[in-house]
Amino acid sequence: MTVTELPAPPTPAAELPPPPGVHLSAPETRAVLTVQDGILRATREYLSEEGFTELLPPIIGPVTDPGGRGSKQVDIDFYGHRYKLMTSAILYKQASLLAFPKIFYIAPNVRLEPLESSSTSRHLAEFHQIDVEMAGAGRDEITAVVEGLVRHAVGRVVERHGRELAALGRDPEVFAALLAKPFDRMTHQDAVASLHGIDHDQNPDAEIDWEGEALISRRADRPFFVTQYPKGSRGFYDREDPAAPGTLRNFDLLAPEGYGEVCSGSEREFDYARLVARIRESGENPAKYGWYLDMARAGIPSSSGFGIGVQRLTRYICGLDKVWQATAYPKLPGVVSP
Amino acid sequence: MTVTELPAPPTPAAELPPPPGVHLSAPETRAVLTVQDGILRATREYLSEEGFTELLPPIIGPVTDPGGRGSKQVDIDFYGHRYKLMTSAILYKQASLLAFPKIFYIAPNVRLEPLESSSTSRHLAEFHQIDVEMAGAGRDEITAVVEGLVRHAVGRVVERHGRELAALGRDPEVFAALLAKPFDRMTHQDAVASLHGIDHDQNPDAEIDWEGEALISRRADRPFFVTQYPKGSRGFYDREDPAAPGTLRNFDLLAPEGYGEVCSGSEREFDYARLVARIRESGENPAKYGWYLDMARAGIPSSSGFGIGVQRLTRYICGLDKVWQATAYPKLPGVVSP
Repeated sequence: MTVTELPAPPTPAAELPPPPGVHLSAPETRAVLTVQDGILRATREYLSEEGFTELLPPIIGPVTDPGGRGSKQVDIDFYGHRYKLMTSAILYKQASLLAFPKIFYIAPNVRLEPLESSSTSRHLAEFHQIDVEMAGAGRDEITAVVEGLVRHAVGRVVERHGRELAALGRDPEVFAALLAKPFDRMTHQDAVASLHGIDHDQNPDAEIDWEGEALISRRADRPFFVTQYPKGSRGFYDREDPAAPGTLRNFDLLAPEGYGEVCSGSEREFDYARLVARIRESGENPAKYGWYLDMARAGIPSSSGFGIGVQRLTRYICGLDKVWQATAYPKLPGVVSP
Repeated sequence: MTVTELPAPPTPAAELPPPPGVHLSAPETRAVLTVQDGILRATREYLSEEGFTELLPPIIGPVTDPGGRGSKQVDIDFYGHRYKLMTSAILYKQASLLAFPKIFYIAPNVRLEPLESSSTSRHLAEFHQIDVEMAGAGRDEITAVVEGLVRHAVGRVVERHGRELAALGRDPEVFAALLAKPFDRMTHQDAVASLHGIDHDQNPDAEIDWEGEALISRRADRPFFVTQYPKGSRGFYDREDPAAPGTLRNFDLLAPEGYGEVCSGSEREFDYARLVARIRESGENPAKYGWYLDMARAGIPSSSGFGIGVQRLTRYICGLDKVWQATAYPKLPGVVSP
């Protein structure tokens, strides 16, 4: 972990997105969306080279990922049946490994985040994920994919989009360490200890709070992994560590300069009995997940996977104040807009 | 219009999709999804070469495309406000031309099609579109993009996915005319006359019905355009022909062998006053489209665009009985499934 103190990101502006005509015709928006297109091209290049098949993700279904951090799911009426909009397509990613050993989506998600998150600069009610799953992989193999992908995407943007970065006032030199050095990793426990050491009141049994993330992320010169989150903090599909019960074989990737989390991933639980136990522990009724559990009972592969927030990654690469600047049609929690 | 009588597609099987574990592990599904990935790669190659920027589409918003042929929109509760799931992102495509003159999405859509459409072999409640919009283009320029794109995609599949086509029993020779000859075009009026000539009771003021489409499509050896649909049959954003009032400067692309429509497109209305008049004519309240009309009043470019149904195009290229075979997670109208 490099401890160079880097400048904090610009103070978040308080404004909401302007009307669509103003937002879309701003030269800054054009530069950001051009870079985002470049990030996704580079993502497809990298994953395709690594043997991944791209699938089209579902956006509705009878159940969705219950693991959202305080966000609510959206109900829809599907011919008289209560369906959900995808908060993430994690259950479908595991299912798809029956067709291909390595898959990915560029998947839209909707999460009704708490109203107060509209001012975090980092939450959107509608966003996209680079959603990857790999059969047979352990945590070290999947974090290598995350690292390779992020390095490739940033490298391509620096190569191909110097003009856009210049227009956004983003110095490509900030990526020197990212492009040259392996990403560090620290455990959740160490991150908590480090935050307690600077008098930040981080709950050791929960995800690192936004302020805590910003604090540790400001000390880094390149993205880094935080691993081994406590069990209660994540969805039932993150595999519990048999060697360290109560903690998970999972990880986040945090961007430096205070940008914080841009990716979450894990080794997955795939054993039917353990899945049922984990669902029960989380206070949910396993019957709700019928199709998924039926499939797990018949057998799904072990796997690891992750989701990278496209708008958050774009925000970091472009050096933006607000995550809504990284989308053509910003939808902030609680704010009515096109 | 080539009039060679080709064999009808196989009689539609009556079955519903099997459970996800069975569907996803079938070798046929694997072949189809591999071809679909190939179609979308070729699509991105072609559109990128032609100077189009890919954007991430919205999936929810205060309004959506009202132009669905008999299908219902899905309501959602967005922090106490009634939003819709996108039936198509047409309004956003026009808006995005303020950022870039040529844009596209690979966009998921949800349409609650009538229950009887679950047995047409060609309707899904959840599907994806290759959604393209081009500023300043007229109908001839945009149909050239459709034709170029479909030819490029089919050519790439034939080159790169011979093994998958063979596994699916699809003879690449069926694409010889598509690859070699320009696509024909006929007007809606001529299509109606031709259907009346074979005693098919087609309403001249409506879209061509599914059976009618299958009838004319079975006579073709390659995809062909039907142009100039009557005004009442489409959304308010399809531009009325000033030279032929009551008809639209629009088109469908029909695949041969009975597969029927795989693409709809049009020159767009962009004039504020005419948009308001068209919305009123369609029986809707213009106030509902506030953000879109505000933007049109400030000025949006003239344009043409289209949407190609990804699963329908995949069905045609792979020669499948049912469109649900062309998706990893089939959702048929009225059928509860993952």
